[in-house]
Amino acid sequence: MADGEKPLLRVLNGERLDPPPIWIMRQAGRYLPEYRELRKRSKSFLDFCYSPSLATEAVMQPLRRFPLDAAILFSDILVVPDALGQKVWFVEGEGPRLEPLLPLSAWKLGEPEKAIQRLTPVYETVERIKENLESGVALIGFAGAPWTVATYMLQGRGGDKDEARRAIYQRPEDIDALMSVLVETTAQHLAAQVRAGADCLQLFESWAEGLPPFAFQRVVIEPTRKLVQRLRELGVTVPIIGFPRGAGAQLKAFVEQTGVTALGIDTQTPADFAFEAAPEGMALQGNLDPQTLVVGGEALERAARDVLIAFGSAPHIFNLGHGITPEATPENVEHLVQIVKGGA
Amino acid sequence: MADGEKPLLRVLNGERLDPPPIWIMRQAGRYLPEYRELRKRSKSFLDFCYSPSLATEAVMQPLRRFPLDAAILFSDILVVPDALGQKVWFVEGEGPRLEPLLPLSAWKLGEPEKAIQRLTPVYETVERIKENLESGVALIGFAGAPWTVATYMLQGRGGDKDEARRAIYQRPEDIDALMSVLVETTAQHLAAQVRAGADCLQLFESWAEGLPPFAFQRVVIEPTRKLVQRLRELGVTVPIIGFPRGAGAQLKAFVEQTGVTALGIDTQTPADFAFEAAPEGMALQGNLDPQTLVVGGEALERAARDVLIAFGSAPHIFNLGHGITPEATPENVEHLVQIVKGGA
Repeated sequence: MADGEKPLLRVLNGERLDPPPIWIMRQAGRYLPEYRELRKRSKSFLDFCYSPSLATEAVMQPLRRFPLDAAILFSDILVVPDALGQKVWFVEGEGPRLEPLLPLSAWKLGEPEKAIQRLTPVYETVERIKENLESGVALIGFAGAPWTVATYMLQGRGGDKDEARRAIYQRPEDIDALMSVLVETTAQHLAAQVRAGADCLQLFESWAEGLPPFAFQRVVIEPTRKLVQRLRELGVTVPIIGFPRGAGAQLKAFVEQTGVTALGIDTQTPADFAFEAAPEGMALQGNLDPQTLVVGGEALERAARDVLIAFGSAPHIFNLGHGITPEATPENVEHLVQIVKGGA
Repeated sequence: MADGEKPLLRVLNGERLDPPPIWIMRQAGRYLPEYRELRKRSKSFLDFCYSPSLATEAVMQPLRRFPLDAAILFSDILVVPDALGQKVWFVEGEGPRLEPLLPLSAWKLGEPEKAIQRLTPVYETVERIKENLESGVALIGFAGAPWTVATYMLQGRGGDKDEARRAIYQRPEDIDALMSVLVETTAQHLAAQVRAGADCLQLFESWAEGLPPFAFQRVVIEPTRKLVQRLRELGVTVPIIGFPRGAGAQLKAFVEQTGVTALGIDTQTPADFAFEAAPEGMALQGNLDPQTLVVGGEALERAARDVLIAFGSAPHIFNLGHGITPEATPENVEHLVQIVKGGA
């Protein structure tokens, strides 16, 4: 199958397919027993991400179980700060930790070119995945959007984003400088993934929520717009899925101003609202409640069919509205894929 | 001044005032040194809430410092589960804890009438505040909206709401029964506050975010609609401000279907979007970023003026888009009130 004939790419190019292609955010992950087993082979999560053999194996695991239409690179949005020289580590059961920028009076940020050199194993992973994929399965590259990555860099962890948000007022020039570095590094990182074989890209803006309008413009829309523009300058022509989780009322502004070519819809956003926000013919991706993959049964069936019906008139990529949770079961994922593929 | 002449009530009745009335969510709270001092007089936070003298003093503290247009009852949304017989306590620096309902196979819920009897000290507080208020200052009664209160009752704490959301699929009848008890208890609780002297009411739906559309309808819109309806049946005629924080795309559905008479706007929602969601002439309350009261200075001035301009064409109540944080300073609040009142 030629690249352009892969169902995911056809939909990203504006075609409506019935049934729609399906993939699942975090489809390679902790809900799979074989992933939990594989994960033991590296003490450090970052080392796991930087191992082409382990990361490729993680990507292939869900594809052996389920007839999914896409693979997504196994990596983490925090490889970018790590490659920029910030100390990053993961605390089991708690999440990521970084040496936070905010307490420092001057932020020494790394150079994008050097960061990309350090990320070479990631691009080797992309190449390996590509070699292993069946012809109809698209390969998605990804990165965190600048603001989401910045919140971790600034505060040193997840949780509330109050201090990072405050810095937008307190240190606007520093924030702009950080955003510039992230835009350039992320653009080069994504372009390298495409050169290595990624068919399309997704930008995870996981923390779009809670920002006042001027700040949403300054740290979400503007950096994303510049990132997309920079990707095009670097010769990247593949589709770019923007996923601004929690954008709410700002969804339309995000689509109109950033230049993303497809839109990930979070769990909370009704399909009708997404239709109004996106230009006609833009591919919409989402938005099944991840909790239904824990619950299963009739509730899953009903919710999945609701999503199919709600997005049925658009070019639609079936997905969740947020990442699958560790409590989900492989059986429920299998059931979901059957429902979407029309076999159930 | 007759009740109807209080600036806050005039705006709630659809009048546009320049300058707009102002109050601040959590204006009685930890950013005030005198509150932190007063708080020491009771070991338990709930006992503090149930002490008419301490709670009244907490309410009066910010009014002595700032020329605010409203007082709000000092209490907590979790007095309702406490009064219904669920064990509730507060862990210093962490937040509320309850004996969670979810692990139980059968939920024994208390009786609304008995709960209201246990809440008598709250209504005595309302009476005392009313006696102490200057004539132009409106008194706001409040409660948590049913879903927000339910998330704490179900999970036993704040944090992510995944388990509570899952219960909507897994135990829909139990959730409906819980909602019914909360609707009736909350309606009686609010009606008693109005009988004791509250001039208007606010419903805090702090966890409106993240729900799939069917669930938003079922646990946010429907119970709120029933609550407003029940309040009217109980003879309550005062304005009701709904504050569905994080409702995002669902804001319009919330306004159209619940019957609230005014709308609290969260930090993230642009004024234009609120204008489209609310019927013309409905009072809008909000939505300054609480972080600006930590930052202060020019950033505060600029952000406050932006809010004044953005909402200037509507009946507007100046407020934050979320509660004031403990890191805010009284000096910044004073500065804000001066800006809004036109003295700065």
